[in-house]
Formats: sequence, C-alpha cells, structure tokens
Amino acid sequence: MGNSKFTVIGGDIRSIKLANLIAQDGYKVNIYGFNNASFDTGLPESPDMTTAMTGSDFVIGPLPCSNDNETINAPFHKGKIYINEVFQTIAKNQLFIAGRISGKVKHLAEIYNVQSTDILEREDMAILNAIPTAEGAIQIAMEELPITLHESNCVVLGFGRIGKTLAKMLQGLGANVFVEARKYSDLAWIKSYGFKPVLLSDLDSFIPQADVIFNTIPFVLLDETKLKLVDKECLIIDLASKPGGVDFEKAKAIGVKAIWALSLPGKVAPVTAAKFIKETVFNIIGELGV
Amino acid sequence: MGNSKFTVIGGDIRSIKLANLIAQDGYKVNIYGFNNASFDTGLPESPDMTTAMTGSDFVIGPLPCSNDNETINAPFHKGKIYINEVFQTIAKNQLFIAGRISGKVKHLAEIYNVQSTDILEREDMAILNAIPTAEGAIQIAMEELPITLHESNCVVLGFGRIGKTLAKMLQGLGANVFVEARKYSDLAWIKSYGFKPVLLSDLDSFIPQADVIFNTIPFVLLDETKLKLVDKECLIIDLASKPGGVDFEKAKAIGVKAIWALSLPGKVAPVTAAKFIKETVFNIIGELGV
Amino acid sequence: MGNSKFTVIGGDIRSIKLANLIAQDGYKVNIYGFNNASFDTGLPESPDMTTAMTGSDFVIGPLPCSNDNETINAPFHKGKIYINEVFQTIAKNQLFIAGRISGKVKHLAEIYNVQSTDILEREDMAILNAIPTAEGAIQIAMEELPITLHESNCVVLGFGRIGKTLAKMLQGLGANVFVEARKYSDLAWIKSYGFKPVLLSDLDSFIPQADVIFNTIPFVLLDETKLKLVDKECLIIDLASKPGGVDFEKAKAIGVKAIWALSLPGKVAPVTAAKFIKETVFNIIGELGV
Amino acid sequence: MGNSKFTVIGGDIRSIKLANLIAQDGYKVNIYGFNNASFDTGLPESPDMTTAMTGSDFVIGPLPCSNDNETINAPFHKGKIYINEVFQTIAKNQLFIAGRISGKVKHLAEIYNVQSTDILEREDMAILNAIPTAEGAIQIAMEELPITLHESNCVVLGFGRIGKTLAKMLQGLGANVFVEARKYSDLAWIKSYGFKPVLLSDLDSFIPQADVIFNTIPFVLLDETKLKLVDKECLIIDLASKPGGVDFEKAKAIGVKAIWALSLPGKVAPVTAAKFIKETVFNIIGELGV
Repeated sequence: MGNSKFTVIGGDIRSIKLANLIAQDGYKVNIYGFNNASFDTGLPESPDMTTAMTGSDFVIGPLPCSNDNETINAPFHKGKIYINEVFQTIAKNQLFIAGRISGKVKHLAEIYNVQSTDILEREDMAILNAIPTAEGAIQIAMEELPITLHESNCVVLGFGRIGKTLAKMLQGLGANVFVEARKYSDLAWIKSYGFKPVLLSDLDSFIPQADVIFNTIPFVLLDETKLKLVDKECLIIDLASKPGGVDFEKAKAIGVKAIWALSLPGKVAPVTAAKFIKETVFNIIGELGV
Repeated sequence: MGNSKFTVIGGDIRSIKLANLIAQDGYKVNIYGFNNASFDTGLPESPDMTTAMTGSDFVIGPLPCSNDNETINAPFHKGKIYINEVFQTIAKNQLFIAGRISGKVKHLAEIYNVQSTDILEREDMAILNAIPTAEGAIQIAMEELPITLHESNCVVLGFGRIGKTLAKMLQGLGANVFVEARKYSDLAWIKSYGFKPVLLSDLDSFIPQADVIFNTIPFVLLDETKLKLVDKECLIIDLASKPGGVDFEKAKAIGVKAIWALSLPGKVAPVTAAKFIKETVFNIIGELGV
Repeated sequence: MGNSKFTVIGGDIRSIKLANLIAQDGYKVNIYGFNNASFDTGLPESPDMTTAMTGSDFVIGPLPCSNDNETINAPFHKGKIYINEVFQTIAKNQLFIAGRISGKVKHLAEIYNVQSTDILEREDMAILNAIPTAEGAIQIAMEELPITLHESNCVVLGFGRIGKTLAKMLQGLGANVFVEARKYSDLAWIKSYGFKPVLLSDLDSFIPQADVIFNTIPFVLLDETKLKLVDKECLIIDLASKPGGVDFEKAKAIGVKAIWALSLPGKVAPVTAAKFIKETVFNIIGELGV
Repeated sequence: MGNSKFTVIGGDIRSIKLANLIAQDGYKVNIYGFNNASFDTGLPESPDMTTAMTGSDFVIGPLPCSNDNETINAPFHKGKIYINEVFQTIAKNQLFIAGRISGKVKHLAEIYNVQSTDILEREDMAILNAIPTAEGAIQIAMEELPITLHESNCVVLGFGRIGKTLAKMLQGLGANVFVEARKYSDLAWIKSYGFKPVLLSDLDSFIPQADVIFNTIPFVLLDETKLKLVDKECLIIDLASKPGGVDFEKAKAIGVKAIWALSLPGKVAPVTAAKFIKETVFNIIGELGV
C-alpha cells in the first residue's frame, strides 16, 4: 500500500483527525467537505470534489455515511454534497469506504457501479470501537453515581464485544463484575475471566443488589417486571442500539434512572475513534493485498 | 462497641450518609446541624445540641471540621454552631472525631479538656480516600481528553497512597502507566507491580510522550522548564494539596491545560466517602478496645 | 434434573472425583470399573455392569473413551470392559457421555442405537479445560526456566481458547505478553486485552527476544527456519494436539529445548478437571431440558 | 559509575550470572572462586585473590556470605577462601558487598577496617526478591495441588513484601485471594487492591475453606489449634524465615501437608535473582554518588 492515495470526504471531527493521521503516516490525502470548519484541519481543502478525488485509491466518507440517504453527512460543510454526485465522480478502481451505509445508499452504489465497504460492519472495527464505548459508559457511571465503581456491584447484560471489554475495565477498577449471558460457552468464558457468571434465569436475584446495570443487548430485557426489582439508587446505562434494552417510560414511572448512551466513540474519544478507523482502513487495504 | 451511641453534628452530605450508615448498622445515632437540609436525612434532627449529645460515646463533626476556626462547618444548618459551645457540651468520656482539625481548634479542645481525633490524619482513612480520589482523577481525564485512557501514556508523579491506587486503576483500564519516584525501594515496587519506573533524573525524556500527567506530590515539580516539554494535547491533573505541583500561571502562558483537583472524595463519591469515614470511625473504636 | 441418576464407568482419577462430586450434589451415582483402585473411591463399586447401569439416566464413560476402540479406558480395573457390552447394556432412554469418542466407537453406538455425546467436542468444556491447560503450561515454564515469568518475554502462538486463557494468566503474573494471530479481528482483541499483537508476517522479529514460546496451533509453524531464530536460553512449550506446532527433531539438532505438553488438565489438576466435567454434564442435561 | 571495576568472589550460580551481567553492561569484572565450576563462566578466573581484587571498586561476595563465619561460601571452588584473607586484601577505597553478613563477619570487617554492605538488608533488594519468592511459591502450589489456583481459595498470612507480591500474582491467575493482616492501614490496602481482608480475629472462620495457605510471617501462627481447622486437602506453604509460621510436627501428626520453602529466589530463578542483585548493586553505587 506504499503509494496509496486517499480522499476524505465529509464527516465530523473524526474524519479530520483520520485525514491527519493518514497524512502523518506519509500518504497523500485530499480532503473535501470541511469548508466551514472553524478549526485548523491541517490539510488544505480541495477546491472541488473532482479535484479531491482524482488519482485517489480510496475515498473515505463519514460515519454514518448519510442522514437522509441523499447527501453525505458533512456537518462542517457550507453546501450540500450529493451522494449520487460522489458516486458519479468515483472512478472504477476507487473504493468507497464509509460507516453505516444504508440499503438505499448501497443500492445507489450498485447502480453507479461503485465498490463500497461499510467499515462499521467489520469485526475488527467493532471490537476496537468497544474500547471507547466501554470508557464512555464508565465515564457516565462515574459522573452520575455518588459511589465509586471500586467495590460497587456492576451487572453487565450480554457478553459480546462491548460486554467483554466493559467487564474487563470494570474489573480493572476494582468493581464486583457480574455478567449475564445465555450460552453455556459464554458463561464458561465469564468464569474463566474471573467475572461472576449470571444465568438469565437467575438474573432476578442479582438485579436488586446492583449499583449499576450496563445493558449491551438490543432487546428490551429490562421491562416493567425487571425494573421493579432495581434499587432506587441504581443507575442503568443502556449501550444497545435500537430498540435498546430498557423500557424507558416504565423506568421513569417507577423512578429508576436509565440513560441511553449511543454513539459513544465519536463523542467521548473522537481522536482514538479516528485512529481505529485508520487502522481498520489499513486492514481493508491489507486484505485487498494492494 | 455493641452499645456505642453516636452524635453526628454538622457537615455536608457525607455526614448525613454517615449517620444513616451507622444507624443501619444498628446503633443509636442523633443528628444535629441539618435543620436547613432540603433532602430527607432519614433520622430526626435533635431539638438542640445538648439533647443531641447526651448519652453519646462519640461526637462526629464534619470534614473539614471548621472553615473559620470558630464555627462548625455546617452547610445545611440555618444558625451557627460555635465550636466552643460544642466543646462545653461534650462530656468527659465522649470522643470528638472530625476531619482536618486546625491547630487553633485543637488548642481549644485542650482548653475544654476534650479528647479529639483527626480522622484525616489516620493512615487507614488516607488509604481508603485514595480510592475515590483516583476515580475522580480518572473521571476528569475521561471528560477532558478526546482519547481513551486505554493505550494512552499516563505519567504519575509520586508513588504514595494516591499514586499507587491511581496507577493500578489506570493499568486496569489498559493505559501505559509510567510512575516517577525517587526512592529505589519505590522504583522496585513500581517495577514489581508492572508499571514503568521513571527516575526523576529521566523524567524529562518521558514528559513529551505523555497524554496525561497526574501529579500527587505537594511540590512544584512541573515548573516552567518541565512544562515546556509537555505536549500541547497533554492534560495535567494536579491532585496534590497546597502548594500543588504545577506552576499554573506558566502552564496557562505556555498553553498547557492543567487542572487542580482537590477534595475529590466528597465531590465525586460522597456516599463511598461516608462509608470509608464510618469504617475508620469503627477502626478508631476498635483500637480503643471499647 | 432433580431425580437424575448417574453411572460412572471406567476412567482415571478424574472419573472417581467426578462420581464423588455428583454424589455430593445429592444425586444417586453408581460406579463400575474401579475394582483395582488402591485409593478410597468414596462410593461402593457395583458388583457388575448391569447393576451399575440399571435405572441410570446418564452413563458417563472415560476421557478418552477408549484407547483401542474395543475396551473402555479403565486403568483402575482388573478385567476388561468391552464397549459393545456397555452398548448392549445401555437402555434406550440412557445417554452415553464420554470424551474423544472415536469414529469407530461412534459407529458402534449407532449400530446399538445408543445416544452418545462427546464431552470434549463441546465448546463449554473446551473453554474450561483451557484453564488447567494454561496453568499446566505455566507450571512447566516455571520448573524449566531459571528466570521468573514476571518481566519475561512470552510469545503465545494462536489466540483460541488456550491462547486467550494463557495470555491473561501470564499478564497476571507480570510477563510481557506477545500474541501472534492471523485474523485482524483477533489482533484487535489482543490489543484490546492489553497484549502486544504480532502479525504472522512480523513474527520473525519477535522470536529472538522470546524467553518462552507457547504454541497452541496444531500446525508446524516452528520449522527449521523459525527455530534457528530462537534464543538458546528460550524454552518452547507446545500445547497443540497432533501434529503439534514444532519440528522437534530440528529443535533438538539446533539445540533449542522444546516440550510437547499434552492432556495437561488430567495431569496437573485432575480434581478441577473433574469439576469441569461435572459442570459440562450438567450443562448437557440443562440443554436437554430434563 | 562509568569506570567502576568489579570483583565477584565466590558464590553460587547467581554470582556467575551476576558477573556476566555486569560485564555485559560494559564494566570490567574479575572473578575468583569458581575454579571447580563444570560450566562455562564466561569470564576467565583470576589466578589468585590479589590479582582478582587489584584495582576494583566493588568486591561482591556471595549470598549468603558465609556458612561457617570463617570461609566465603564458594560451592564452585576447590580450595577454601578465608574471609580474613579477603578482608586483608581489600584496599581502603573498596566496598565489600555480600548477602546475610553475620554479626561475626561484620565484626571481622570492622577489625580489618573494611566497608561492608549487606545487600539482603536493603529494602529495594527485598522487594525485588519477593518476585521470585512469590513465583516459587506458586510453582510449589501448582506442583502439589490436584486443583488449579484459578478459582481456588488462597489465604495469605501477612501483607509485607512477599504477601503483597504473592497476592497480586494469585489474583492475576484468577484465585480468590484472602489476606490476613493486623494493622488497619494494611487492611485498607488489601481492600483497595481488591483482595479480601481478613482480621486476625476472624481468621479461624476462613481457614477451613482454604485450598492453600501461604504464610509469610516469622511467627508460629499456625499452631495446633489453627492446624486442626485446616481442611485435609489444603496445602500450607511457609515462606517465613526462622522460626517459620507453622508447627510442622503438629501438622504432620494431624495429617496436614505443610512445606517450608526457603531461599526460593536462588533456587527457582537464579538468573532473575542475579539480575536483581546487579540492579541493587547499581542502586548502592548510585546512592554513593560515584
């Protein structure tokens, strides 16, 4: 990938950091879609999209790619950047990389014969993103709770990427970590890692002792019945994408504080998030064997 | 200590939580000095100081004991509670326990022949207090930095109670932890615990790589010369009591962000702080062999 | 599973411990195949196989099930226990559970219409077994090396169940842990867990610094070329099943010490191994919904 | 210390490793007292003591210095090396460093006006030596027990250097770690580090659940009364120097296995021990400001 050239088009602060990081690694990077940025982008904005994209091997769009399926998500740009214009401008040998590419945008890419990769669907990216997500969740817990996490009872629902990473960090802070999982193999890992395994069927007896409950499962497990078991001083932090894992209305009615914390990496650690995007982009290139 | 009776007099939210915790353990607790509290104290306020203190074995004042050397620090009280009145009311067999008892107040206690113990001068209390202090420092770092602590370079200056506790937690979050110490025996412990030992004489070569510097030494080590070595993206968190460890004016002039974070336990984790006060009070009683 | 009845037939010390553990949990257990045991089995040996198996719900054979595909592996039994006799005796509603059931024995089970489950093919068992395997590997390293694992450079080849568990324990002892993996997602996990990720293509530059190399991949990665890079003081511990991961003849010729350590759970921690077998048997029963 | 010259005189394998390590750091090193060594010492043996010591700044004797108060402990030497000859030969500006220098030998040094330092009385050395001691204790536990340390109940008596280091490593392996201490400040640290604090007065209720008991206190705490509480499957490892912490005769009579494991660093990790001796020697030189 020694001579690879990159275009970063649109996106939030992470895209700018990403462009800078790639440039620092010695690659040629053009940027487009930041003409309204009040901060120094470090790299000169290309005069137009065509100039920005000419000669590039990889065109990196934002995460998420678009909010309206029509325009590139470009909060630091004065005008609008239409996705179909981007796709018209992309040459055949260029790869379009962005995050959360919707079905509609993917369909558009196919029409324009554009090769695209959704970086947020990659396993490596998801594993790395669990790190800032876990730290963000810990930050919220520290901000909200009048107790230390050290020696607190933390219940983590789910043992996927976020559950694993979060449980390890909580353990590292000295918390008592209980992890709920369904599969016997997950329960074996939970035990192996030194967390306390909790079977779903036993969860009700652990909930009342919890100081914090972190949910990572996109399924409303914390319904009215379970919420009624939660201590009034306990905090619930829901990290699951839609539909989330908490019946928030019922929580409010019952008087249990529950926070739905989404998209933490870009919010709490945009610079680290940009570094992880860069690493994953390089992994993509590594797999292509360029 | 089975029949011990307690009076909690004045103080912030921690004193209220402390009173509740002692009561939950089954002891008789009177409270006085919270008649203006907007929250439920859980226990009934005694009508006057004498009633509050009659029959008690231990009178627990606030942390800090006083801000003016005349009155008890009682932010939730309408009137003023004069220390000399408290000392007049205390009986001979009662022990007065409070935090940061100044020389003047100590002198007053002697005049009134009152036995007093400064809870903040106890080693056990200081060790326990390092836990919320370390978490508070981590919370600030998470809030201020656009990177994760995971894989960041954290330099801890000093390996006393806070340094030890903080270094362990940072390691638990996955940070690269460098600890500066002067004594060879401390450097041996630092190595043993898996942190990277840094000799004071080598510090200058580590500072520029730091993402966060946590100071715990009450001596201005981070003077102009050292501050000029600090990266502009680096955050300095000073946890040392007066005079602190940072030349804050120079830091501002040079453009390095430095935060002086004091009295964290009461701010970030008052409930845990109250629990630790209770444990230390019980340790005091244990040592008395009551 | 409240009324389940068990028969433990043949096997080594683990089978005896397993029988005792199940009995301690309050279940009825018959044993058969230990008439030559010099130690106290805790339970009375059934007079014959039929008596032992009558009324049982689960017949638990040894790990491995057989060494010759004809007889049950029963080192503490005077006579021979023929597998076909066992299968003839098993009733329709009884489940036969054992470890490493060969193709031939499986075929025999089908002929006799016997339901069988290979416990060593279960994910939960394999995860749990990685714990004594990792400890056994650490014990060997401690015995063989004139250095401490603390601060040593440990290279772990492979990040499957054993690699993950071993890397965590080595980190817990204070070692510098390098883990080689091929998949980008594994490398992301390795980084997340705080180990040093090593790409296969970079392995050659890490090998010469290694104090111990633990192999977990059943593929001869450590061939002559790689072995020549290994330091003469370095120890190689191969934990991979056939064909192993080391060219042992070349290692000997070159003068590098390499140990092939197989079946560690039964050797270094038979009591823990028995506990894990019990837990997995109970998981099997849980899945059956008995 | 750039031009420092060293003589290593007598000692076991650690002294040889030490000499090699110092030489590898670029210093001039003479050795004497290894003429019977069957292994390659790496450095040439000086023809006689005087030649070995001429021009040296530091004369490093063995650990322990002597077994009979007359001769240097030199297991790899044909003849005898008399301490008084060594002290006669030492020049005024030379420092004699060795381990466990007895009162008699110290007295002799004074008579000959020889400056001496006992390396084993230094805090830094003792802290570092706790690392191989802890690993040695873990190795013994792994060898002797039929269970894994992971999830075992480990009781550590004492929270000095060995207790702290051992407790951390056991925790790193996944054990449940209980630590007994007397001082409230130690109990606060034990809690802070995530171990379970055990008051001496509560010890009796923890002993029966222990799978291993590690003693680090040189006082016979495990007397007949306590030993009777120990489970028959439990292993006791005594790491305390004389008089040890176990009534071994009673233990044998009661049927509890107890091992007195002394001088572990030189036995289980002589190369690491040599490295730590070198570091401490360099610390001594650093303190001298040479």
